[in-house]
Amino acid sequence: MQIAHPYLLFLGDVPDSLAAKTAQGIVDWRPEWCLGQTRLNGCAADTGLPDMSIREGAGQGARTMIIGSVNAGGTLPEHWVDSIIEALEAGLDVASGLHIKLSSIPAVKEAAVRNGRALYDVRHNTETFATGRGTKRSGKRILAVGTDCSVGKKYTALAMDKAMRARGFKSSFSATGQTGVFISGRGVALDAVIADFISGAAEWISPATEEDYWQVIEGQGSLFHPSFAGVTLGLLHGAQPDAFIVCHEPTRTTMRGVDTPLPPIEDVIDMTIRCGRLTNPDIRCIGIAVNTAALEEHEARTYLQDLGREHDLPATDPVRFGMEPIVDKVVAAFGAP
Amino acid sequence: MQIAHPYLLFLGDVPDSLAAKTAQGIVDWRPEWCLGQTRLNGCAADTGLPDMSIREGAGQGARTMIIGSVNAGGTLPEHWVDSIIEALEAGLDVASGLHIKLSSIPAVKEAAVRNGRALYDVRHNTETFATGRGTKRSGKRILAVGTDCSVGKKYTALAMDKAMRARGFKSSFSATGQTGVFISGRGVALDAVIADFISGAAEWISPATEEDYWQVIEGQGSLFHPSFAGVTLGLLHGAQPDAFIVCHEPTRTTMRGVDTPLPPIEDVIDMTIRCGRLTNPDIRCIGIAVNTAALEEHEARTYLQDLGREHDLPATDPVRFGMEPIVDKVVAAFGAP
Repeated sequence: MQIAHPYLLFLGDVPDSLAAKTAQGIVDWRPEWCLGQTRLNGCAADTGLPDMSIREGAGQGARTMIIGSVNAGGTLPEHWVDSIIEALEAGLDVASGLHIKLSSIPAVKEAAVRNGRALYDVRHNTETFATGRGTKRSGKRILAVGTDCSVGKKYTALAMDKAMRARGFKSSFSATGQTGVFISGRGVALDAVIADFISGAAEWISPATEEDYWQVIEGQGSLFHPSFAGVTLGLLHGAQPDAFIVCHEPTRTTMRGVDTPLPPIEDVIDMTIRCGRLTNPDIRCIGIAVNTAALEEHEARTYLQDLGREHDLPATDPVRFGMEPIVDKVVAAFGAP
Repeated sequence: MQIAHPYLLFLGDVPDSLAAKTAQGIVDWRPEWCLGQTRLNGCAADTGLPDMSIREGAGQGARTMIIGSVNAGGTLPEHWVDSIIEALEAGLDVASGLHIKLSSIPAVKEAAVRNGRALYDVRHNTETFATGRGTKRSGKRILAVGTDCSVGKKYTALAMDKAMRARGFKSSFSATGQTGVFISGRGVALDAVIADFISGAAEWISPATEEDYWQVIEGQGSLFHPSFAGVTLGLLHGAQPDAFIVCHEPTRTTMRGVDTPLPPIEDVIDMTIRCGRLTNPDIRCIGIAVNTAALEEHEARTYLQDLGREHDLPATDPVRFGMEPIVDKVVAAFGAP
């Protein structure tokens, strides 16, 4: 699967910008792939891209229309289906991260076949994976892990990849979630894989490369989250990272969606190393990435300094202060590019 | 899903008894549910049940025909399909643990609809699961875990359930694999669940019960197996066991199907406790179950004695020496029934 760009981002008529966060993530990280946005009457989201009709987007060279919003309840409203068919008629592929499969809608499937266009349902893998092997692959890998879900693992991996490339490393971002797949144009929504193939899919996502090439892999869940730890462990084993970054949100007290208390960062580092050693005996932590949005700048700096000292690791906020301290750590630990 | 018995076991025409091990497992553990076996010309497997045609089985009251063999390559040969349709026409439900879905074969699906019969594809869950909650449920749970795959976890859980009931405990076996589902008539093939729902499915498998009721849960994989550890961890979190039994095969040096060395039993106990505490802070190991088939009886006894002393736990071979020592441990740790 390789989703063709430029993208036309379809926002529908959602009532707020949060509902269009998939589109916003794509614009934030791949603005050069984004030609414009298509909004229906009453849409309250705005990614800042030029507004255009589907026909205009096609005329300007868009290759794929991405469903960049989620409707209330995650369903696909009838009038969105009309827009999807219009895009297919205009010669675009269509990609979606919704639970409902585009190809399960007869009119959409027919329009795709009739126009020879591809439908991408990134929550539903068409790829057949082998079970994981655990065999060491060539190349270097960094995995973002977390004290919880939704603590900035995708953002951290993307920021790390960007900072690595800016420093002259050969590097790319490997997606394991739906928004990440749109941002990278390929990858797998790992939480949608059949349980037996989690680590196999993670191996597929981060294949063997040249020795000096770095893959920075989006994390999923947390080893301490009672809903999703199985996905996290399968990803850790399959990714066989040489290095990992712990992502954290300091105001969170219980794990997202459940009553389980957040684990100490120390425990996440320790457990990740203990489990990760199974497929990479040299796994090590190279830094802590914190979302400090809830803190004043001065507080944030003090917090990160204390955290860094406590764990003897660089600690930064990727948004506020950048990834340079953690790239420095990579250079110190693995050598300059 | 509740598969109706008595069962008629369909063995097909497989070339050896290993290919019929699903059928054999059902006969070993639920002989009272098994009416007979149906074999085609050339079948080399034999469970020891009375041979009968499908029509005879139906006439004697069979409710479900179980596909109890696996053909080379795991496919469903055309002449097996004829037998499946014959069973449906005779008024039986049909259950299969093959990768291919019975309902994906048009002639089979039509025959099921026409005769108002159910098709059970236990490798394909039709149940919709919630994500795991991690909340403590009432009742007691024992989970079989392993140093590797295929080290006797299902056998151990079944033997433990049987021994618990013989001692007067209220207890039942909870299936997490396909043969186990046939043996218990319900359950989920956990390795076939979508990754996001592993622990949620495990919670569904082992629901809240009366406080003095024990569920003995079939384990899957190993926390140290690079292919399947994600399933194992999700099961551990969802099952929230009060107690676990480590299953082991002493002649194995590398994990099944991969090059990873087998972990020490000590590490399995330690890691299971560390991870299991997330959803049950009181989790503890209550014994070690070893498949000693490769050892002489004297060697086996010495080995188990040394192992028990080393870990300060009862160590037994469920087949050779029974589960009594581990039931004793349950009584000592949790009280008599």
